[in-house]
Amino acid sequence: MEREQTLIMKRKPRIIGNYAIVGPKEGQGNFGKYFDYVMKNDYFGESTFEKAERKMLESAISGVISNAKLSPKDIDIMVGGDLLNQIISSSYAARAFEFPFVGVYGACSTMAESMAIGSVLIDGGYCNNVVCCTGSHFSTAERQYRFPLELGNQRPPTSQWTITGAGACVLSMNGDGPKISSVTFGKVVDWGINDVNDMGAAMAAAARDTLLNHLENTKTKVGDYDLILTGDLGKLGSEILIDLMDEEGIDLGVNYGDCGQMYFKREQGTLCGGSGAGCCATIFNSYVMKKFREGKLKKVLFMPTGALLSTTSSQQGDTVPGVCHAIVVES
Amino acid sequence: MEREQTLIMKRKPRIIGNYAIVGPKEGQGNFGKYFDYVMKNDYFGESTFEKAERKMLESAISGVISNAKLSPKDIDIMVGGDLLNQIISSSYAARAFEFPFVGVYGACSTMAESMAIGSVLIDGGYCNNVVCCTGSHFSTAERQYRFPLELGNQRPPTSQWTITGAGACVLSMNGDGPKISSVTFGKVVDWGINDVNDMGAAMAAAARDTLLNHLENTKTKVGDYDLILTGDLGKLGSEILIDLMDEEGIDLGVNYGDCGQMYFKREQGTLCGGSGAGCCATIFNSYVMKKFREGKLKKVLFMPTGALLSTTSSQQGDTVPGVCHAIVVES
Repeated sequence: MEREQTLIMKRKPRIIGNYAIVGPKEGQGNFGKYFDYVMKNDYFGESTFEKAERKMLESAISGVISNAKLSPKDIDIMVGGDLLNQIISSSYAARAFEFPFVGVYGACSTMAESMAIGSVLIDGGYCNNVVCCTGSHFSTAERQYRFPLELGNQRPPTSQWTITGAGACVLSMNGDGPKISSVTFGKVVDWGINDVNDMGAAMAAAARDTLLNHLENTKTKVGDYDLILTGDLGKLGSEILIDLMDEEGIDLGVNYGDCGQMYFKREQGTLCGGSGAGCCATIFNSYVMKKFREGKLKKVLFMPTGALLSTTSSQQGDTVPGVCHAIVVES
Repeated sequence: MEREQTLIMKRKPRIIGNYAIVGPKEGQGNFGKYFDYVMKNDYFGESTFEKAERKMLESAISGVISNAKLSPKDIDIMVGGDLLNQIISSSYAARAFEFPFVGVYGACSTMAESMAIGSVLIDGGYCNNVVCCTGSHFSTAERQYRFPLELGNQRPPTSQWTITGAGACVLSMNGDGPKISSVTFGKVVDWGINDVNDMGAAMAAAARDTLLNHLENTKTKVGDYDLILTGDLGKLGSEILIDLMDEEGIDLGVNYGDCGQMYFKREQGTLCGGSGAGCCATIFNSYVMKKFREGKLKKVLFMPTGALLSTTSSQQGDTVPGVCHAIVVES
């Protein structure tokens, strides 16, 4: 291995608050009971889906500050991004608050990217409290990346269902909560996938790369983690990752899960499962953190992946590169 | 003032290398002789403008690593972004290299945002060498944000000309070069501008906010800097900033300049001047850094601004918020 990509946290920032808000379909999925708020419909009282996405993010930010028992004036910086062009959901959500905004883009890896930057800001002693957040919306993503919703287009079997939801956490120097012990920023990896309806396959190569790098840097094994959790590889992509790791002689085994693969019930008809920046953001900031607080999880490797394409790059014949950033959370 | 937005750098990361590449029109402007490379045409040997933009970024990254007398294996992380949807230029440029990629989006403030994150990564002791970069391309921005190029649309007098160019720097723990002593992340500020051809006015309010915050935090005055340099407020926006600061009893005076306002010669017909993420990125990484090395600049406040809109937000009637991140560079 050429380069150690893992940054070790010396002071170990605490995750002192979490919040997850989702749409009604997501609320009926496997994690429904863990979310802080389930919207009655995808409009959330707004006139467009884009404004609804923004409002979800605003709610997640307000909600997480409240859950962390802080007020907005205690927040030093917000780090966030989303899937919409020019990350407008996050930018406009940040406008509603008085704290500085660091906009990031890592596609569906954004929850980990924002947490990794937030961890460095806390661990380096630059900030006391940082909000990290992201989200996505089925209807905004579908019409921006694929087809007009009115078209009622058929979905191929490898496709996934963009999560309508937003998740946020507060990282802090002080307070109680699980600790972040290391972060691993990922490389951009491209294995030549060019099917824009098969993002899981495109991202699995990036997950493999970051996971191998992380395990070697930290001298840990799969068995050292209660849970290794990818973001939205989905049913197909997560099987590909299992195969790729098997080729490296590493059995992901029962400790491995993928948020997209687990999100929905079979009868909800989402084919390869959930996807979108909100997919792992809502599961991490609800189910995973609650299991930590109950003492049922003690060490988790959280590694969301992102597919770094645009409609323009696809139309110009480019293949789909992926990226995967990883975070270690310990009790 | 409610919140101190300025992060003080303890070890003061060094800027050990710079690189700027521009298009032919930019090469004929006021800073032509300072750029590392002037392209013969806007295609740069590629089949589309988007691929040319990506290749400019790749060239800037390769060039800056070489100028810093390093090899790609010495780079720990690249922090970058651009104006295209899903920051594809930066993501695809990162694919060409073996280092981890932190994708950011701050519109035309991206050079400062990437340098601010890079500074924290170096100053906190997490990395030895970080590449920070951004760029823009007149023809990709024009057709993504405004009108098809073939339309030959008239430009209103407040409009600016997106710079075709990319700039990059290497921040390091070691080596020689100007130091970064503080970074100030900006808030999202919206004063209700809704003319998408008047970005300078939209961003001036954000520049005012960050500048006031920075001066108060650091207990410095305008006269303490040899140069206060905004990114691409342009002729109109920079005059608005001068007026806004005047209302606060602060005379920006002769120490103030704006990259967009200064970029082109009058006869080049760019109306309010240059704009785009590449605007301040190319001037900072050529002219400004050369003046530092010649000893003609000793302390600069570099504060690029960004307009955080998308075509969707404009079509849905949203106003245009701005953001401004600031960096202090000292010899």
